[in-house]
Amino acid sequence: MNLILLAPDDIAHQGLARVTDPRRLRHLREVHRAAPGDRLTLGVVGGGIGRGELLTLDEQEATFALEALDQAPPPALPVHLVLALPRPRMLARSLEHVTTLGVKRITLLHTRRVEKSYWMSPELDAEKIHHHLVLGLEQARDTRLPEVTLEKGFRPFVEDRLPDLLEGRRGLLAHPGMPNDCPRGLNEETLLLVGPEGGFIPWEVEKLLAAGCEGIHLGQRILRVETAVTALLARLF
Amino acid sequence: MNLILLAPDDIAHQGLARVTDPRRLRHLREVHRAAPGDRLTLGVVGGGIGRGELLTLDEQEATFALEALDQAPPPALPVHLVLALPRPRMLARSLEHVTTLGVKRITLLHTRRVEKSYWMSPELDAEKIHHHLVLGLEQARDTRLPEVTLEKGFRPFVEDRLPDLLEGRRGLLAHPGMPNDCPRGLNEETLLLVGPEGGFIPWEVEKLLAAGCEGIHLGQRILRVETAVTALLARLF
Repeated sequence: MNLILLAPDDIAHQGLARVTDPRRLRHLREVHRAAPGDRLTLGVVGGGIGRGELLTLDEQEATFALEALDQAPPPALPVHLVLALPRPRMLARSLEHVTTLGVKRITLLHTRRVEKSYWMSPELDAEKIHHHLVLGLEQARDTRLPEVTLEKGFRPFVEDRLPDLLEGRRGLLAHPGMPNDCPRGLNEETLLLVGPEGGFIPWEVEKLLAAGCEGIHLGQRILRVETAVTALLARLF
Repeated sequence: MNLILLAPDDIAHQGLARVTDPRRLRHLREVHRAAPGDRLTLGVVGGGIGRGELLTLDEQEATFALEALDQAPPPALPVHLVLALPRPRMLARSLEHVTTLGVKRITLLHTRRVEKSYWMSPELDAEKIHHHLVLGLEQARDTRLPEVTLEKGFRPFVEDRLPDLLEGRRGLLAHPGMPNDCPRGLNEETLLLVGPEGGFIPWEVEKLLAAGCEGIHLGQRILRVETAVTALLARLF
């Protein structure tokens, strides 16, 4: 928690913030070892970042006197990430990694090699997803929540939504064995598609290439999804 | 397990391999859903890669008839990674990530902000470390085990070992706030130093810069160690 991320509800009135959830209170005590008088970095969801003085801290509540929260959050990556739904534990970690790296649009997609049971996982509850996004923002000192969309059908996604998403974006399909090496240092708006463990099936690859995506690869090593996504984002941008 | 990694002991005699540990047997049954007659990818620690036919599979043992294991493992990254010892769970995952990405030399270093208790963790047992390296190799279809060295003193490392390590290598110190952006697409031998959660302390940064390392950064976002290491390796090479 390199930033204490305040929900609008946490701000009691102008200049005073109240934190009451056990996770953040424990973190303040055990990791920050915070004491009244300490000045910590705070930000408001969707808003600015600044400092606040810890006024009180007990088992139920921490209160802060906010100074101007007038610094902008760090810049976002110009990418919409389309990720084949990973297995639940990998999903949680991948959401944190990509949020930390600055991704603001995430689509979780069904593909042939995504196990159908993954769609029943409690990790997909809106609250759970929100939790992992918040952890990513707190880590990166960011305030802007990514938007997460679920697409439970591959064909409707490719046929009905993909053409619009590729409007004004460069589509990159990351898949082992594609002809082109992953490009470096892009500045342009990009749609990045990453398959599941085991990859997209050939028919899916064909559909995505036919829709206008370029196939790219990261070399001959087979990476876990969470490693691949971080490596792709770090190399592309 | 994209490759079944055989220890020399697993090869019963010329052309016949025997796998008896519960982890790999379970993986063969539950993930590969392998059956006698299937041809799978195998490799020998430190050696070549090829295919083998599964002859038998039961609760105690799998046997394979090996074909020529004559393919070379994927190329290694030209990097020696010096990583401030992460907390135990992060260590396990970081070892897997960097092994998967092709790092072959890893030094785990004590720095001021490494909690001393981390050095007592069972995750540092040679067997545990070996296990995570093997998982990384199996994922990446690699056979060459990284070499892991423990350095429990920062000063002896910097004063006695670092000058030799920098002989013929470019030293890069990854640390927030350093003046230069992380370079891209290097081909040269590199020594990459990555600090702990909370970073190197100023005195450590000074010592490393004075020893000839260049300071580099990955932008203003603060990344977790496992995310940072993957991002650095993907961008540098």
